[in-house]
Amino acid sequence: MNKEQEFISALTRGHRHSPYQLNRIHESDAELVQISPNDPILAITTDSLAEEMAYSLYKDAFQIGWMAVLCSASDLAAVGAEPLGILISATFTEESNAAQIQSGIRKACEAFSLPLLGGDTNFSSQLNLTGTALGLIKDRKPLMRIGYHPGDILAYSGPLGSGNLFAYQKLFCNDSSNAIAFQPEARLREGVLLTSYASACIDTSDGFFSSLDDLMGVNPYGFEINAPIESLLSKEILSYPAPFSLNLFLAGHHGEYELLFTIPPEKWDRFVRDANEMGWEPLMAGKVVEKPGIHTSEFSLAPGTIRKTWDDAKGNVSHYFNLLLGLVS
Amino acid sequence: MNKEQEFISALTRGHRHSPYQLNRIHESDAELVQISPNDPILAITTDSLAEEMAYSLYKDAFQIGWMAVLCSASDLAAVGAEPLGILISATFTEESNAAQIQSGIRKACEAFSLPLLGGDTNFSSQLNLTGTALGLIKDRKPLMRIGYHPGDILAYSGPLGSGNLFAYQKLFCNDSSNAIAFQPEARLREGVLLTSYASACIDTSDGFFSSLDDLMGVNPYGFEINAPIESLLSKEILSYPAPFSLNLFLAGHHGEYELLFTIPPEKWDRFVRDANEMGWEPLMAGKVVEKPGIHTSEFSLAPGTIRKTWDDAKGNVSHYFNLLLGLVS
Repeated sequence: MNKEQEFISALTRGHRHSPYQLNRIHESDAELVQISPNDPILAITTDSLAEEMAYSLYKDAFQIGWMAVLCSASDLAAVGAEPLGILISATFTEESNAAQIQSGIRKACEAFSLPLLGGDTNFSSQLNLTGTALGLIKDRKPLMRIGYHPGDILAYSGPLGSGNLFAYQKLFCNDSSNAIAFQPEARLREGVLLTSYASACIDTSDGFFSSLDDLMGVNPYGFEINAPIESLLSKEILSYPAPFSLNLFLAGHHGEYELLFTIPPEKWDRFVRDANEMGWEPLMAGKVVEKPGIHTSEFSLAPGTIRKTWDDAKGNVSHYFNLLLGLVS
Repeated sequence: MNKEQEFISALTRGHRHSPYQLNRIHESDAELVQISPNDPILAITTDSLAEEMAYSLYKDAFQIGWMAVLCSASDLAAVGAEPLGILISATFTEESNAAQIQSGIRKACEAFSLPLLGGDTNFSSQLNLTGTALGLIKDRKPLMRIGYHPGDILAYSGPLGSGNLFAYQKLFCNDSSNAIAFQPEARLREGVLLTSYASACIDTSDGFFSSLDDLMGVNPYGFEINAPIESLLSKEILSYPAPFSLNLFLAGHHGEYELLFTIPPEKWDRFVRDANEMGWEPLMAGKVVEKPGIHTSEFSLAPGTIRKTWDDAKGNVSHYFNLLLGLVS
């Protein structure tokens, strides 16, 4: 377990489990609550943005507002919920461009059909935005992180790596004002379709490899990645003259908020047909294998290896970059 | 409107109102959502603790954890909801005593029957805890801030002023280690009973007078306070040698998390009988009057006067103290 997961485990230890909660800790991207068997399932998820601003990864106020909503909306997508609404608790500083943050929040709420239900506002010395999104799952099974089996196809909702390209440009390039636009979407419609087909699902909020680590944290099986790296990445990365292995764009922890999921092979064709009908082209990355770990033609990583690099680097981004480089190139 | 309310209004401006949400902004202590007419009402509320730590008002880690749960639990009480669960998003610093904070969270979750459903953990340079509590209201009407009428009795759930005594000792006294223990309860059982009787309800999280200001923000009527000040305050205050008017303990913004509510006079006797049966003695403070404002035998304050003093003081606690002193003594 990485530091965050250990903290969450410590936090939940000794707590009574709600008789209404369907998932255990780490088993799904959002908490799943059902009051009685015929009720819709309520999906709830809370996410704070603070580190991203402390590291100056997010400086644009509109983007900060957008991301505060997107993080939680993406978790709803990853359990297959339909959006119900969101609460935002904002701690502003005197320097915060609150109007632009609010504008980003408003646009994201519109984009993801999440009416703002309420919130809380504070003032202090560090900007902190916490979004809590609610969604509903009616007459369907929720998507969870647990449940895939060897032979299942590992697939994802759209091109990967843009989050890490953005982070690299912001943190390591002299002129970070030329960084790509980073305003991810929440794959809510895709998540709803996946409830009919997927054996497991997670969003790539923490990057592709790290999300595979999270899946392996609650399942006994590993992954073989057999799609060529170029096919996995978004076009803007392939045209970017990166002076390091392209694998870094899958290994960094600043993800792109796509959905990463497994489909039993016998369901694949029907799934792709339904997806295409809604104008979506899911992409194959590899398959589930018995042996735990991430296995590519270039390297094999034990479960949790990528997940813990950020903790190991203790906040030093150059050290972190070199740790990743040593693992995947 | 005060600064926080203005921010919340700006945040909600331009947002689509959810067709499932029963309340408008500022009309209730928690958001009220109902999917279809026969469903239970879902109460949801989010609250962040950050300023309290930045001002060193809360330094004890157990207390910080307790308060992170209590703030939201008290909002559930003030709408008459039964507790369903809570999510905690924690941004820790390297210096945080996370184990003790977690212990405070756990004890409060037990005390208020709020299973921890999930959460998020971050690390940054300022401690920030955001609790989002969920509750249910089945086959009953929720309590709201709106709805009282002249002649209604103004009452409260228990002795007032302990929050402000604690804040005074922490912020103004040389030896703050002798401050009273401050670990308020959420009046959840009382809130449920009040759904049968009260015309309006709010918790005193921001202090007695400030909560009256909040009620007047969404209702056209004012309040006459005719109970003697000594009868309103908790015993520990009456034995404390405060070198200023006792009214300050009602005027300060660090409240005691009691419920403050209005009861139509014809319902009062039945209400008190039911309350006594559950071992609770509600207390009378005064009554609703036509004329907006807070009216005592010593002073009259226009609506919003107390609410805005903290903003007016711009974070200077001595200035704030003197502003309040000028208004109520």
